Amino acid sequence: MPKPLVLHTLAQFAAATAGRNMTRPAYAAVAVGVLTMVLLTVDPAHELAHHWVDGVLWACLAFFAFEWLVRIRHAVLSGNGPTYLMSGRGLLDAACVLAVPGAILLGAPQRTAWLLAVLWLVKVVPGVPGLRQLRRVLVLESGPLLSVLMIFLMVLFLGSVAVYFFERDVQPETFGNVPAALWWAVVTLTTTGYGDVVPITLPGRMVAAAVMICGLGVFGLWTGILATGFAAETRRDNFLKTWESVSRVPFFATLGPSAIADVTHMLRTIDLPARAMIIRKGQVGDCMYFIASGEVEVDLPGKKVRLGEGAFFGEMALLGNNLRSANITTTRLSKLLVLDLVDFRLLMARHPDLAQTIDTEARRRELENK
Amino acid sequence: MPKPLVLHTLAQFAAATAGRNMTRPAYAAVAVGVLTMVLLTVDPAHELAHHWVDGVLWACLAFFAFEWLVRIRHAVLSGNGPTYLMSGRGLLDAACVLAVPGAILLGAPQRTAWLLAVLWLVKVVPGVPGLRQLRRVLVLESGPLLSVLMIFLMVLFLGSVAVYFFERDVQPETFGNVPAALWWAVVTLTTTGYGDVVPITLPGRMVAAAVMICGLGVFGLWTGILATGFAAETRRDNFLKTWESVSRVPFFATLGPSAIADVTHMLRTIDLPARAMIIRKGQVGDCMYFIASGEVEVDLPGKKVRLGEGAFFGEMALLGNNLRSANITTTRLSKLLVLDLVDFRLLMARHPDLAQTIDTEARRRELENK
Amino acid sequence: MPKPLVLHTLAQFAAATAGRNMTRPAYAAVAVGVLTMVLLTVDPAHELAHHWVDGVLWACLAFFAFEWLVRIRHAVLSGNGPTYLMSGRGLLDAACVLAVPGAILLGAPQRTAWLLAVLWLVKVVPGVPGLRQLRRVLVLESGPLLSVLMIFLMVLFLGSVAVYFFERDVQPETFGNVPAALWWAVVTLTTTGYGDVVPITLPGRMVAAAVMICGLGVFGLWTGILATGFAAETRRDNFLKTWESVSRVPFFATLGPSAIADVTHMLRTIDLPARAMIIRKGQVGDCMYFIASGEVEVDLPGKKVRLGEGAFFGEMALLGNNLRSANITTTRLSKLLVLDLVDFRLLMARHPDLAQTIDTEARRRELENK
Amino acid sequence: MPKPLVLHTLAQFAAATAGRNMTRPAYAAVAVGVLTMVLLTVDPAHELAHHWVDGVLWACLAFFAFEWLVRIRHAVLSGNGPTYLMSGRGLLDAACVLAVPGAILLGAPQRTAWLLAVLWLVKVVPGVPGLRQLRRVLVLESGPLLSVLMIFLMVLFLGSVAVYFFERDVQPETFGNVPAALWWAVVTLTTTGYGDVVPITLPGRMVAAAVMICGLGVFGLWTGILATGFAAETRRDNFLKTWESVSRVPFFATLGPSAIADVTHMLRTIDLPARAMIIRKGQVGDCMYFIASGEVEVDLPGKKVRLGEGAFFGEMALLGNNLRSANITTTRLSKLLVLDLVDFRLLMARHPDLAQTIDTEARRRELENK
Repeated sequence: MPKPLVLHTLAQFAAATAGRNMTRPAYAAVAVGVLTMVLLTVDPAHELAHHWVDGVLWACLAFFAFEWLVRIRHAVLSGNGPTYLMSGRGLLDAACVLAVPGAILLGAPQRTAWLLAVLWLVKVVPGVPGLRQLRRVLVLESGPLLSVLMIFLMVLFLGSVAVYFFERDVQPETFGNVPAALWWAVVTLTTTGYGDVVPITLPGRMVAAAVMICGLGVFGLWTGILATGFAAETRRDNFLKTWESVSRVPFFATLGPSAIADVTHMLRTIDLPARAMIIRKGQVGDCMYFIASGEVEVDLPGKKVRLGEGAFFGEMALLGNNLRSANITTTRLSKLLVLDLVDFRLLMARHPDLAQTIDTEARRRELENK
Repeated sequence: MPKPLVLHTLAQFAAATAGRNMTRPAYAAVAVGVLTMVLLTVDPAHELAHHWVDGVLWACLAFFAFEWLVRIRHAVLSGNGPTYLMSGRGLLDAACVLAVPGAILLGAPQRTAWLLAVLWLVKVVPGVPGLRQLRRVLVLESGPLLSVLMIFLMVLFLGSVAVYFFERDVQPETFGNVPAALWWAVVTLTTTGYGDVVPITLPGRMVAAAVMICGLGVFGLWTGILATGFAAETRRDNFLKTWESVSRVPFFATLGPSAIADVTHMLRTIDLPARAMIIRKGQVGDCMYFIASGEVEVDLPGKKVRLGEGAFFGEMALLGNNLRSANITTTRLSKLLVLDLVDFRLLMARHPDLAQTIDTEARRRELENK
Repeated sequence: MPKPLVLHTLAQFAAATAGRNMTRPAYAAVAVGVLTMVLLTVDPAHELAHHWVDGVLWACLAFFAFEWLVRIRHAVLSGNGPTYLMSGRGLLDAACVLAVPGAILLGAPQRTAWLLAVLWLVKVVPGVPGLRQLRRVLVLESGPLLSVLMIFLMVLFLGSVAVYFFERDVQPETFGNVPAALWWAVVTLTTTGYGDVVPITLPGRMVAAAVMICGLGVFGLWTGILATGFAAETRRDNFLKTWESVSRVPFFATLGPSAIADVTHMLRTIDLPARAMIIRKGQVGDCMYFIASGEVEVDLPGKKVRLGEGAFFGEMALLGNNLRSANITTTRLSKLLVLDLVDFRLLMARHPDLAQTIDTEARRRELENK
Repeated sequence: MPKPLVLHTLAQFAAATAGRNMTRPAYAAVAVGVLTMVLLTVDPAHELAHHWVDGVLWACLAFFAFEWLVRIRHAVLSGNGPTYLMSGRGLLDAACVLAVPGAILLGAPQRTAWLLAVLWLVKVVPGVPGLRQLRRVLVLESGPLLSVLMIFLMVLFLGSVAVYFFERDVQPETFGNVPAALWWAVVTLTTTGYGDVVPITLPGRMVAAAVMICGLGVFGLWTGILATGFAAETRRDNFLKTWESVSRVPFFATLGPSAIADVTHMLRTIDLPARAMIIRKGQVGDCMYFIASGEVEVDLPGKKVRLGEGAFFGEMALLGNNLRSANITTTRLSKLLVLDLVDFRLLMARHPDLAQTIDTEARRRELENK
């Protein structure tokens, strides 16, 4: 009975498509589609295989159309059809489906119309994990970044008018008007320097040198602003992700709120799939772990011990000798809190009660293992 | 009666021009003027439309002349005419008006004289918000920046003399003298690399490689210095903007001066126009707001509640479930203090009394809304 | 009896090779081998000396083969032969030995096969001290770095399709297909700008300008992320290296654990070979030293005093006049803890008992020297 | 009697030369000498004026010879002649004098020999203020910087061998051997991109793209390391400069050592010449000043008040309204400590006794001024 299986898979896939942003087949379709489109523009490849290649592209388009319809159906069923259609995501889904057929209907040759398949790449954007963080940095630092852009534009215009003035008589074909000089200025100020348009008079070259040095400065300011913003954002992001998890670990329950904020600054969350090796026997250890959710298995000689939510492990390598004494792997999807050696020592120094808890547990385990 | 209206508009505009640095029409005049000037240098465009285009330029010039006169009149009336005329702003206003006619009087062809209209761009500078901040960074870090410039110049001269020595016999037309080699060195050290002048002998290329790697180093130092300075300046700027507002919020009045400094470091000010949507129902909330000035409207089911200066909102999403429960918009120009989720938790941990105040208010509101 | 000597040296060398990652002869073999290989590709050099040059290469290969065999023997003897053979290091050793002969056996001309000798360079990697640190930064910041790579790829594809669309008819030989346009986009987005492929139409140039400015932005984000990660990693690394040493200095034994963490943040470890001059008489002093291990000799007028593990010196220049009063050199390999003038003052302020200990000792020494 | 005057000037100049590193005439001689040397390499300029130009160069050389002799004499008189001659500074002085005549004696044509005058530029190095700071950063961060250099070299060699392999048959004249490919790799990896040597095969271009992206990464790491090191160094330098001055201000004498370290972190020293305007009436004030040494004059209506070492001013603008109420200028060379508005508030919050002292003084002054 292959038919019910197909239907079941389809239903499952439809559910995944409706709920999540990008399914694995969708990623594959984007990759295959865009690469095929790129290939299609190479003349020999086009002549050799364009029928076959066209098929692939139409299949990708069909996939995205199906995805779009599933999402519309899902939205209509849950009562917010118009919301989805008019949302950024809905409009993007629509554009990805309609752009190519639309262009063909409007009379563009088919090979040109397929160039619009590059839009499919944009579908990947919401799935990029750090993008939200980058956007926050760009928004928070928008003031200084705009100022730098302003300086950039001012140098661009002043520089290109000056170079146009000095070069127009000597090189009328390349510096014959200010828009051409602006092209030169952009190429120079970004330190790209194609070399297709180069000043040759002495004053022109002096202006060019000033523009290049300003380019370095603009670059430096830009980077400095982004670095500053990014450092703040990273701290914030890490704190938020960790705070949630810390509250679930009973070990930290005895701490007051101020100490919890303190601890949160020290910990780092990591998410691990099932069967991931966390600690390898004999390695040098420089951190310990708390289990925020999930479960791990300690591979002791003769027996296997399982540790669940709220337990900690890896502390022995930090207390005495620094070699790991057992393999430890996750048994299912787990969220761990990592405490680095540096912060382990600071924490032990500031909160002697925690130090004692860990010490007692470590000694108990050592006895047990003997 | 159109005449009084015109006069009224003119009076209003004159007042705005005298008081503020750049009015909206002034921004428009700068943009239109400079773009028209750029267009004028393109030969076909010039031939086709230079009468029309000239008219636009003269109109912009007339606008700036009018602006200058209004400001002179205003300065004279308030008794500091000479001060304004001799100030940087006054001189700039004068230059923007007089440069083009001056050049024409001195015998420059009209099309060349209009190139000086690029000066109008400089009028925009004082209106760029973050420029003051950038200037402070450049002043405070001027010592190290000058050192880097010194290293830059030293590498420039040593490199160009060395390359000149190795290349002059092989490429006499491009490396025939040290100024030509200096041009090569600037292009290389800034990593622009036009490729119009390239060493071809082995020792010449080795010097060039050293110059390029120094270029990377100079770039890195430059950026590092600016990043360091910028980080400090951003912290300072934010503190100053926020301190002012914090003192106006009665909520913080119970705190001692040390705690206020603490709180100020956590808050961030934002200015919002009237009718701006601050919180959208159903969104994930990661900050709460205090009203430093202005007013907001909470769109509760069945009624609309207005909150004025000193009130706070958005705390519910941080305390319990993290979805916003109502739309909130400003009713007029408002200044808000934003407390991020991270800092909210730190603040609650350090100042339990504040935590209680917020908690009580949140519970009261929840009861009221039921 | 030269033979026993040779055998002894060989045994010594074999032991060093088995235990350590890279011996000095191995570094020399890599350097000589790779440079010889580079030389071999220059036609005149090849014709003149390829027999001699081939001999050098075969000798280097023999050296690496010997090294590999010694390590296999060592691994087999210590019972983990297969582990070594399958480890990254074992595979690299194997590849370095087998690549060139393998290529020759597979029919590649000998001169081409020797190009694979460039693999020998990779042997140096595990010996680079800061590489582990860099890898940690790249791993910890992999999220944001991948996001930036994503943005990079997106700009790359969107930009190259757009430029291909605008330029394909005007420059069919350089922008004739999207892969060619992708080459242009990589060259532009990294701000390399060869200039071999340059857009010449107006819309093409506008897209190019946007791509260049995005290139600056990508660059800035990249640098900002790395700078942030690197700053955190440097602090951590320094703390770990120092903590170990601080615990060995009895001077700090009286401090509580919290104060030790405090002190550790202030100190910096340096390793010095025997006979290294640490302090030169008459120089301006801006730090003091604690001896974590090793020994130093103070060259006082008339006598030489030796200070061993746990002693400190250089404090006099920080307390009173700031000129060093004696030469101090190491007598053997020593590990010192450096306390900077800034941190010296902070430490003295926060821990008056330490201040008194140092003061007493300094006064005692001064009396003694009189 | 012009002769004694000349002798007196000469003696004065000799004293300045012997003691200081660079006198003003020395800076002038370097600038004039190097620029003249540059000019001399331009053929038309050489033919037109080389007798006159030669004279200038010989005069500069004579000046440096005189400078060298004065320093030797001074060193011999103070008993450390050989020390000076063998020190870096002494060797540099010798090289600057002897290089050009030496080259002429060795048979170099005079015009070529003068190229060595570029060495004179190196004399300026010890006078650059921030250079010591930069050197410290480079030394402290040498570990990671060397690692990055190592990565740089590895990418360089691997990339150039790979591109050589793919391109040698297609472009034998530009990629005909590995040294040529290394030239390409340096130009590419530093993102200079001359475009004189460009891969054209598909695999060659893919390797090139990888090299370019590695170039961005190397650049980012480099900058990140330097930024990190520079931030730490700036903090340290500022602390040292300020600590010295703080101890001289009686206002801070009541503070304990820990609080002084605290205050030192907040203050910034500035050195001002005589007659410098510090505060202009009517400006917005955002900092107050303490006088570490020197004197200032307050221009009150009707009288002029002088404030000496240890006094403070500018606090009124920070306490009440924020407009400066009087002009204040220095009367002689003064060192001031600047307390920023941000830190003023933090300081007042943490040290209420200081706040009271400032408040009392401010009220006293206000009464007095009425």
